[in-house]
Amino acid sequence: SVDGTDCLSGGIPAFQNYKPAFQPKPRTLEPDPVIRYQDPATAAVNIIGQFRQSYILAEIDRVLYIVDQHAAHERIIFNRLLDRDQAQARECQELVFPVVIELSTLKVELLQEQSEFFRSLGFDLGLLGHNTVVIRAVPAGLSGHEEQTIVEMLDAPQPEGKDQWRVKALMRMACQQAVKAGQLLNQAEMAQLIMELLDTPDYKYCPHGRPTLIKISSEDLEHMFKR
Amino acid sequence: SVDGTDCLSGGIPAFQNYKPAFQPKPRTLEPDPVIRYQDPATAAVNIIGQFRQSYILAEIDRVLYIVDQHAAHERIIFNRLLDRDQAQARECQELVFPVVIELSTLKVELLQEQSEFFRSLGFDLGLLGHNTVVIRAVPAGLSGHEEQTIVEMLDAPQPEGKDQWRVKALMRMACQQAVKAGQLLNQAEMAQLIMELLDTPDYKYCPHGRPTLIKISSEDLEHMFKR
Repeated sequence: SVDGTDCLSGGIPAFQNYKPAFQPKPRTLEPDPVIRYQDPATAAVNIIGQFRQSYILAEIDRVLYIVDQHAAHERIIFNRLLDRDQAQARECQELVFPVVIELSTLKVELLQEQSEFFRSLGFDLGLLGHNTVVIRAVPAGLSGHEEQTIVEMLDAPQPEGKDQWRVKALMRMACQQAVKAGQLLNQAEMAQLIMELLDTPDYKYCPHGRPTLIKISSEDLEHMFKR
Repeated sequence: SVDGTDCLSGGIPAFQNYKPAFQPKPRTLEPDPVIRYQDPATAAVNIIGQFRQSYILAEIDRVLYIVDQHAAHERIIFNRLLDRDQAQARECQELVFPVVIELSTLKVELLQEQSEFFRSLGFDLGLLGHNTVVIRAVPAGLSGHEEQTIVEMLDAPQPEGKDQWRVKALMRMACQQAVKAGQLLNQAEMAQLIMELLDTPDYKYCPHGRPTLIKISSEDLEHMFKR
């Protein structure tokens, strides 16, 4: 539920309150005083391990967290993208071999219309013909997924005006850049991801509104084990 | 519930079916075809880590298990104790320094009455006076806890006849011998414990009827994360 009445402290969904539900709306939450750290360096985060190369199990302040690595990374990247000026400075990366892609006339139009937006993200794009676009530079971390990401972004639904389209395009870009489920992470990568997540606004949900983490307290476990 | 209708496959309690309940009766369950292995060497058990030095997180056949290390070890030891003949052969251990304990007259009487039972477990006890007992040998793994274990066992309620008392005494002995919550275990010890657990009848519950493990499948996680 959106009002948080069936959630544990801080609005983090807990296993025993789980009820199947679909399409939760993206939401803004108050920061959780328990696990929201001003200084991630002082956070008591202890990585336990990875489950099926998709979920990170971590102990944070004596509570067990199950973190969806893809959803968590999506949130981190999405918020980084929203903060355009910063991103512009550090995330642009020239391609050694420019990539040429074919797009429909409609998509080329949208691309031209949004050229400033793409430039601000770190893309350097050029038109080679009516339907041919050359990609000369991309935001860092994107190489190898250039074509797919641009096509995905241009595919984002655009019924609600320019800004709404941009947010949806950024969500798709974040999704492309985020680590996938099934990707092996080492201890340092897991720790880094969780530290960055805890330091990101709205860290409890990915941009699509899905939970990034599930919380199981020691008390929850004691109940489950009938202690 | 005892009939298993609100449990997932195999009667293992799953997080989303959790309802607070007290004093479940010890129960006998059918072996779970999914995680009951004839040959533990072939079981796909992958230790993820330990949470708060009390719970073992493991992947078994692509399912996430949270194992209560104390409850699990209790079940293993209890079943080993029930199988007296085997235990007798391998579990007796002479004390370098015999331990002398004082007991109430009532307890000394019970001890004498049950002397054959204690002997069969691997204890070598002798009477030094009306209320003084000397412990010369104990079941292996017990050293350091001799006095406490014997007092605990003699303290077990005995309203239901000799055999009922013996089972309760064995439960207390298993509890004394089992690893405690809060004890750090290494990967090998965790793997060993889980392999032995899966190879033990009634492994899903400790002798007191509390769950030894909680099962969270990938599907459960996908639901929790609204994927």
